[in-house]
Amino acid sequence: MTKGLILKLNCPDQQGIVAKIANYVAGHAGNLIEFAQFSDSLGGKFFARLEIDTQALDVEIHDFIEGFGTLGRSLRADWHFRALPYRMKTAVLVTKTDHCLNEILWRAQMGELPVEITSIIGNRDFCKDLSERYRIPFHLIEMDGAERENGFRQIKQILDRENVELAVLARFMQILPDWFCDAYHGRLINIHHSFLPAFIGANPYRQAYERGVKLIGATCHYVTNELDAGPIIEQEVERVQHFHSPQDLARLGRNCERTALAKGIRYHVHDRTIIDGNRAIVFPD
Amino acid sequence: MTKGLILKLNCPDQQGIVAKIANYVAGHAGNLIEFAQFSDSLGGKFFARLEIDTQALDVEIHDFIEGFGTLGRSLRADWHFRALPYRMKTAVLVTKTDHCLNEILWRAQMGELPVEITSIIGNRDFCKDLSERYRIPFHLIEMDGAERENGFRQIKQILDRENVELAVLARFMQILPDWFCDAYHGRLINIHHSFLPAFIGANPYRQAYERGVKLIGATCHYVTNELDAGPIIEQEVERVQHFHSPQDLARLGRNCERTALAKGIRYHVHDRTIIDGNRAIVFPD
Amino acid sequence: MTKGLILKLNCPDQQGIVAKIANYVAGHAGNLIEFAQFSDSLGGKFFARLEIDTQALDVEIHDFIEGFGTLGRSLRADWHFRALPYRMKTAVLVTKTDHCLNEILWRAQMGELPVEITSIIGNRDFCKDLSERYRIPFHLIEMDGAERENGFRQIKQILDRENVELAVLARFMQILPDWFCDAYHGRLINIHHSFLPAFIGANPYRQAYERGVKLIGATCHYVTNELDAGPIIEQEVERVQHFHSPQDLARLGRNCERTALAKGIRYHVHDRTIIDGNRAIVFPD
Amino acid sequence: MTKGLILKLNCPDQQGIVAKIANYVAGHAGNLIEFAQFSDSLGGKFFARLEIDTQALDVEIHDFIEGFGTLGRSLRADWHFRALPYRMKTAVLVTKTDHCLNEILWRAQMGELPVEITSIIGNRDFCKDLSERYRIPFHLIEMDGAERENGFRQIKQILDRENVELAVLARFMQILPDWFCDAYHGRLINIHHSFLPAFIGANPYRQAYERGVKLIGATCHYVTNELDAGPIIEQEVERVQHFHSPQDLARLGRNCERTALAKGIRYHVHDRTIIDGNRAIVFPD
Repeated sequence: MTKGLILKLNCPDQQGIVAKIANYVAGHAGNLIEFAQFSDSLGGKFFARLEIDTQALDVEIHDFIEGFGTLGRSLRADWHFRALPYRMKTAVLVTKTDHCLNEILWRAQMGELPVEITSIIGNRDFCKDLSERYRIPFHLIEMDGAERENGFRQIKQILDRENVELAVLARFMQILPDWFCDAYHGRLINIHHSFLPAFIGANPYRQAYERGVKLIGATCHYVTNELDAGPIIEQEVERVQHFHSPQDLARLGRNCERTALAKGIRYHVHDRTIIDGNRAIVFPD
Repeated sequence: MTKGLILKLNCPDQQGIVAKIANYVAGHAGNLIEFAQFSDSLGGKFFARLEIDTQALDVEIHDFIEGFGTLGRSLRADWHFRALPYRMKTAVLVTKTDHCLNEILWRAQMGELPVEITSIIGNRDFCKDLSERYRIPFHLIEMDGAERENGFRQIKQILDRENVELAVLARFMQILPDWFCDAYHGRLINIHHSFLPAFIGANPYRQAYERGVKLIGATCHYVTNELDAGPIIEQEVERVQHFHSPQDLARLGRNCERTALAKGIRYHVHDRTIIDGNRAIVFPD
Repeated sequence: MTKGLILKLNCPDQQGIVAKIANYVAGHAGNLIEFAQFSDSLGGKFFARLEIDTQALDVEIHDFIEGFGTLGRSLRADWHFRALPYRMKTAVLVTKTDHCLNEILWRAQMGELPVEITSIIGNRDFCKDLSERYRIPFHLIEMDGAERENGFRQIKQILDRENVELAVLARFMQILPDWFCDAYHGRLINIHHSFLPAFIGANPYRQAYERGVKLIGATCHYVTNELDAGPIIEQEVERVQHFHSPQDLARLGRNCERTALAKGIRYHVHDRTIIDGNRAIVFPD
Repeated sequence: MTKGLILKLNCPDQQGIVAKIANYVAGHAGNLIEFAQFSDSLGGKFFARLEIDTQALDVEIHDFIEGFGTLGRSLRADWHFRALPYRMKTAVLVTKTDHCLNEILWRAQMGELPVEITSIIGNRDFCKDLSERYRIPFHLIEMDGAERENGFRQIKQILDRENVELAVLARFMQILPDWFCDAYHGRLINIHHSFLPAFIGANPYRQAYERGVKLIGATCHYVTNELDAGPIIEQEVERVQHFHSPQDLARLGRNCERTALAKGIRYHVHDRTIIDGNRAIVFPD
């Protein structure tokens, strides 16, 4: 049974928005658990995320949601409700390394990430064992050479058949075709193993070594058509020294990758992110 | 001329508070720049900080402030308005080391801290030169042995004469009498050179060395009767290793002290802190 | 086949130690890969860790090791050689939560920790499933009430039978008897879920919440007779805010616990730690 | 009177280097206080920094230094001795903002940086007051438009006349001509207000804002002909959120700039850095 609602909203900024939204909630005996908002004076936009205890609501949930439409349209807003508790249907795409996958599986199992992992998809079979250990279907998709385009079509079939709301690229070493990025805009999360926008593209730890940086990092971001350039959700860094080889950087960086990805996914599935052009508004918890 | 207001408020939590407050502001054509709030489900309290653009207000500022009283009392709230821009009258208490004082003077001068430093008070004269360089009166107060109690009375005279709103203990190496702490409750900010509650009392860097910690820190907190136990506003840490002597820890720790103190003061003078028993609600910027 | 040696050494400081040790190695055609040392001027001691490529050695390894004794004794040193590659026989003790165990198992599997986990010992059976997933024997030991002392004797039997070199307390919620601590001095590593020496003892996240700290942490340390007071190997912290409940602190703190414990174990099994009274010299990699 | 020596050295890696160097020191009754070294297996080079107590030396200091030449040449090494205590003659170049200059002046005054600041050079006069407050000559150099090349020649005259060993670009907003970079290779330190190699060039905080990063940073590096691409000495980062404007990023970033620059200068003047192509070996203290 539904115990609460999350409302995510963005609209042109204007006077009185908070009052209007809060009035609607209070007017139907909804109780605000959390009301995070941001008035972007530079961009002239308003962003909000509300968590509403609906147990004392004076109407049915669906009625409350539908009724909000009048206010939402008058604000020229984009908005989205989600009933709590929920678990987001999620697919994980992998290639070879399994540390990010392991992190997601473990956090999902212990309840830190409210996701239902419906499938794990790999263009190599390295993560098959780990998938089976957690009893999640593993799909091996051939993507080499001429098979690439066809491979992505197969992935799309799986995602669509399972009504996946989120696909996580957990060190998936393939560049996505534009049509694929477009089809899942705002639902594709990647972990890049550098502190973006430094070291875009291949072998970022090797690039970091050659540049002699004193901190390495990882970036969790939404995927767009432009390589490693989508809205950033979370970043982590770790201090390194001259004696660390590229292999050492990769080892130390895995901590950053796992943490940044896990936090990024958590913010997304808890509706704590709002994409605004090439930036992400994030209300962390 | 006043361009805006900050409203700080806390009250027992109940349904509809956000709507009521936002309605009052919007009802008089105030524009919410920022509305940070926190519903503490464990303590049953509600805390908020609003920044209101008052340029289009339909009443006089003083009228707006006075009129809020009816709502405030109905919520059984403690609240406080402050007109913007403002500079908070501040005294700084020092003994020997001047790095924290230097940090405050420099940040005040460059506009990062909206304070007017009315006087610098020392029980030693080490900071006299620095005070004069910034053309701020320096008061040397004798506090040794039997002079201690009398010294604090003299300090109180200075603070009261200058209507000081904030007194900063910038490495002031004296334990304050209870009556002094009580007289300035919520207006006394200290920087302690450890990651509290570790290493309370004297020589925290020596204590940290002997305990062999791998991170040292500094804590900015409100002063209460209990030594180093008041509400924490900000903390900073820095990584250290076995080869750092107590002197090295003190050197590295100065960075933490300066940053934590400067942030803590900034949060206080911007009304971003609300004391709640032994904890501080802090809405950072 | 042995490809290298690690030499760990500490002795009273005196002039010429580095030359003497380096001469011995070079004199037998050993190649220094790494030579970390620390002259503790406060304590008058010398600490070193050498990694030696032995492939061109002009004598047998055992001869090289034995021959070093003459120098070692003349320096009045404690020293220890270890042939590479090796895997350290390790037992993990657990109670209920499995995030630290999961971290160790995963890192061991992917080669980040050169340990051979011979057994997992629990006073509850919560971690049994995870142990079986990694095909490692799980021993359930009754330790409640009057069974406690007997339980520790059973654990000792297991550790001794398997020639375990390291026992990791991965959120093992039992206070160890003195005789047990003494029996495994320098071979018992614990993860405490606070930034020690703050919040010793039970429920550190609850203590941290009540104290209103702005950073929480975790501490990996060697176990001694005194509760949570042994030599610290590694510490991690994470920033928190007023809105984090004790449960949130526990969730965020798990990241610190996993990272600090994994790093601490790595330093230990790579012989990068030397215990010096209540402090640990750590040469990180 | 000289109490010690620092020896900085790099050479092709080979077996027995540590023994040879340590023997030379011990052979003349020098006492090693610190011996940091790094064998770069990827580059085949050896780097070291020694701190030697020379009080019991069996020869004169100059003789000890000269005698080392035979060993140094046999190792095909670059090396450098420096007698302790010393203060490095340093010039600071500025334009408008003074937070980095203030940091250097204050740290020099309190003894954290063993530098003698001989002059402060600005292409604007904003930092004149601060310079005078510390009683250091301020040179205003016209560099706009056609005066640029001539301006740099004037700066060179000042640096050369005062035998400056280090020139610090403390937010000096001019791109340096190649001949100037070449003339002071390894003696020019810059602070760039981003986490390099991200956001090279102008307005990095604006760039960071537009990219929506979740961490900003600052980089202290040696200057080379290629803009913002020289060897990195130190980097610092600070967490930011979506609500931070470019001005907020600049404010928060100043902390990173000051800390990274102060650490970078300290490492340089303590001879803790060795430039190796485009990377810097740094032995931190």
